Amino acid sequence: YPSKPRLQSKAVLNGVLSRAKVLTIDTMNPTVKKVEYAVRGPIVLRAVELERELSEGMKKPFSEVIKANIGDAHAMGQQPITFFRQVLALCSYPELLNDSTFPEDAKSRARRILQSCGGNSMGSYTASQGIDSVRQDVARYIERRDGGVPCDPDDIYLTTGASDGIVTMLKLLVCGEGATRTGVMISIPQYPLYSAALAELGAVQINYYLNEEKCWSMDISELQRALDEARRHCNPRALCVINPGNPTGQVQSRQCIEDVIRFAANERLLLMADEVYQDNVYAEGCQFHSFKKVLFEMGPEYSDTVELVSFHSTSKCYMGECGFRGGYMEIINMDDEVKAQLTKLVSVRLCPPVPGQALMDLVVNPPQPGEPSHDNFIKERTATLSALAEKAKLTEQVLNTIQGISCNPVQGAMYSFPRITIPEKAIQEAMEPDMFYCMKMLEETGICLVPGSGFGQTDGTYHFRMTILPPTDKLTILLNKVKEFHQKFTQQYS
Amino acid sequence: YPSKPRLQSKAVLNGVLSRAKVLTIDTMNPTVKKVEYAVRGPIVLRAVELERELSEGMKKPFSEVIKANIGDAHAMGQQPITFFRQVLALCSYPELLNDSTFPEDAKSRARRILQSCGGNSMGSYTASQGIDSVRQDVARYIERRDGGVPCDPDDIYLTTGASDGIVTMLKLLVCGEGATRTGVMISIPQYPLYSAALAELGAVQINYYLNEEKCWSMDISELQRALDEARRHCNPRALCVINPGNPTGQVQSRQCIEDVIRFAANERLLLMADEVYQDNVYAEGCQFHSFKKVLFEMGPEYSDTVELVSFHSTSKCYMGECGFRGGYMEIINMDDEVKAQLTKLVSVRLCPPVPGQALMDLVVNPPQPGEPSHDNFIKERTATLSALAEKAKLTEQVLNTIQGISCNPVQGAMYSFPRITIPEKAIQEAMEPDMFYCMKMLEETGICLVPGSGFGQTDGTYHFRMTILPPTDKLTILLNKVKEFHQKFTQQYS
Repeated sequence: YPSKPRLQSKAVLNGVLSRAKVLTIDTMNPTVKKVEYAVRGPIVLRAVELERELSEGMKKPFSEVIKANIGDAHAMGQQPITFFRQVLALCSYPELLNDSTFPEDAKSRARRILQSCGGNSMGSYTASQGIDSVRQDVARYIERRDGGVPCDPDDIYLTTGASDGIVTMLKLLVCGEGATRTGVMISIPQYPLYSAALAELGAVQINYYLNEEKCWSMDISELQRALDEARRHCNPRALCVINPGNPTGQVQSRQCIEDVIRFAANERLLLMADEVYQDNVYAEGCQFHSFKKVLFEMGPEYSDTVELVSFHSTSKCYMGECGFRGGYMEIINMDDEVKAQLTKLVSVRLCPPVPGQALMDLVVNPPQPGEPSHDNFIKERTATLSALAEKAKLTEQVLNTIQGISCNPVQGAMYSFPRITIPEKAIQEAMEPDMFYCMKMLEETGICLVPGSGFGQTDGTYHFRMTILPPTDKLTILLNKVKEFHQKFTQQYS
Repeated sequence: YPSKPRLQSKAVLNGVLSRAKVLTIDTMNPTVKKVEYAVRGPIVLRAVELERELSEGMKKPFSEVIKANIGDAHAMGQQPITFFRQVLALCSYPELLNDSTFPEDAKSRARRILQSCGGNSMGSYTASQGIDSVRQDVARYIERRDGGVPCDPDDIYLTTGASDGIVTMLKLLVCGEGATRTGVMISIPQYPLYSAALAELGAVQINYYLNEEKCWSMDISELQRALDEARRHCNPRALCVINPGNPTGQVQSRQCIEDVIRFAANERLLLMADEVYQDNVYAEGCQFHSFKKVLFEMGPEYSDTVELVSFHSTSKCYMGECGFRGGYMEIINMDDEVKAQLTKLVSVRLCPPVPGQALMDLVVNPPQPGEPSHDNFIKERTATLSALAEKAKLTEQVLNTIQGISCNPVQGAMYSFPRITIPEKAIQEAMEPDMFYCMKMLEETGICLVPGSGFGQTDGTYHFRMTILPPTDKLTILLNKVKEFHQKFTQQYS
């Protein structure tokens, strides 16, 4: 992050009594300084600058900055689901309930949401845990998804996006000092919210490495290695898993999930399952299995004891409604007293944004067969998911035609995370070779990616994360530009 | 917070290998346990239970629970501003831009907001600091409000309600251990977000008492006393002020604000000004003065040096849109490196909810004279603010007719905070006399208030906080019920 050089205080320069600042880089909270979040880091700041320079008429080797750094579907042209937006408009301005152009199922959904709001207004606070009727709908959704495994609405907490739920859970968990400080296991590569939250809380980050050779799968032996090493200097208490994977795009097999649950049970780790991409599964033979479903299929020895928290969101899947900051978490086997503390903790922030709660309700309770909006809803959802599946394949295929780039199949989620070969000369020249590579790519092509170092990677390997979200024609151009750039870069530093 | 008795683990009961929980009340983060938030505490939990019991047909001495515990305007029947909701509907479902029943100014406002969103959709992430054009509108609003004092949009951060901004600023600030641990001065009575955030961050809470005898004003001598005492055991670095006051309803004089700024400057304290009730000023002769305006009127010795953060929100004033979680903060004289850290920190949570950002934009940029919606906007705003002014007066007047209750004028904000005399016998019977009083009031009348202990009060004095938000007829009934209850309670314990 850029910052101007520190000046002497103005007062001194004017010869007046000095008054130094209360809050400086040296006197601020040191844990905040340690926080890093590459998805919006220096490359993105530079991309924003470049956009400004372009708009001011400055000449660049490209006419447009393409932000492939973040899973921001609508910004990349994905259209919102019509039904969802109709209901949101009706809830925002209930006068529209008299408008005959809105379908009846949208109106009845809006009425139900408004009836659950104080004074029938989305402008009222809701219960801190979220609107009752929405939590009931979430519970029924989970039961359908998991083939009838029961879900108690009381175990559902609506959140401000999944990030909010993840940070809240970590906050409950992290304590101790020195060798008893809480350690939390996260995958490498990871989504950097985890490392950022752990840094802010002063928790110990325990890295377990995904196996790139086996399509970014989780190895129990690697979990064991990481845990055993960590036990020497901290108190590991939780294991975070992202499935489908971010940034790595793998979809975990049922067997793998079962093994992970058994590992967590044996090692007494609380499981945090980040399942926000649960509808984003593209590869043949892959299927989403929720951690909860597998847990319950393993029988009461596990389903009565393993503490599991699962996170979902309105931001991904086929809806991509990031801006509304909707989400939920389900807590399973949580101690009753801890749950009371969780309810208290979330009450301090009053409630999650109500439009996001409404949207979460629609996601878990979309138009049903026979309802007027059903066919169009299915059509829109299918179109979006098919396009994503196509783009996942296209991305993998084109990247793998580039010498020096190898990309695992994008089985799910919204990103490719290819491995790139960076010539020795470039490695010697740069402090962070993949940051150097991505910055050069941005300056020369206008394509904004995130270097692998922002997610973590095995030492000596280099990657970038690229979303598969641009429209197919634009994605094709983008992939070809990446190819051209990589070839040029390789030549230049060989 | 109620919790079930701890059971032995199921596994032990079944004679199977025990597997104790990872996360229990004894092994969770102890700072979270210390967090308290009375506005949604045990009384409110009981009120929710009572509502359920009533709906199940259980007999009670009342037919309805009235939640006068929280500043939730729409839940109390206040109507949203039509123009705001029209624009939100247009932004949610842009098809409506073709609907001729929507006024042109609403449409042009919606178009402008959508043009600032990626893919013209509120479903896109925005810049973490908030949408550029909204921050520009906020800056122009502040300049108009403060008689032309300049405001840089770059110093505006949009937030998820004011609470989010306050917690973020405290997070940047709090550090150190033992005698160097950061201390933060807050008023007593206070809004319990402050004590909750400080407890969670492990900061030292430094109480300064407002002067109830002088209409809850701030005394510099009391600030000095609190600071001098605190300096013996911590490092005081910030002073929080709520103006207009919550829960106390006072509006600070210009002179008082100037004295507070001088105190902060001399003592090197960062000033945090919670100004979310800036339009809620009712009493004759009272006027809202922003801390920023006064700071700049004091000349460069102050305006170039004093670090000030001011908070505003969409939740209060005449709009009362709590559920949208919109807000902003303006940072003044903040060190550039710290500002870069702040920008980084907020980026981890991606962005504030976009509908809340849109609403904040409308609040700072409402319909202008000559625009089609202007007259109706003014009519609606005036009606709401006049009704609040009337209810503020009514509340004060009726409460002061009750023997054993004395209430300062409700000059601003949305609450009365009357002092109540609790008979000696009740004090001896109860652990927390005003909690006991409010719980009894709830059980007997259905009126939900927050005991003074939730906000802090001088030892041996008792209060409750009651919103002035119910419609006038309901408020009259409520106040009479309070009167009856207080008389009965006093008799019973005399």
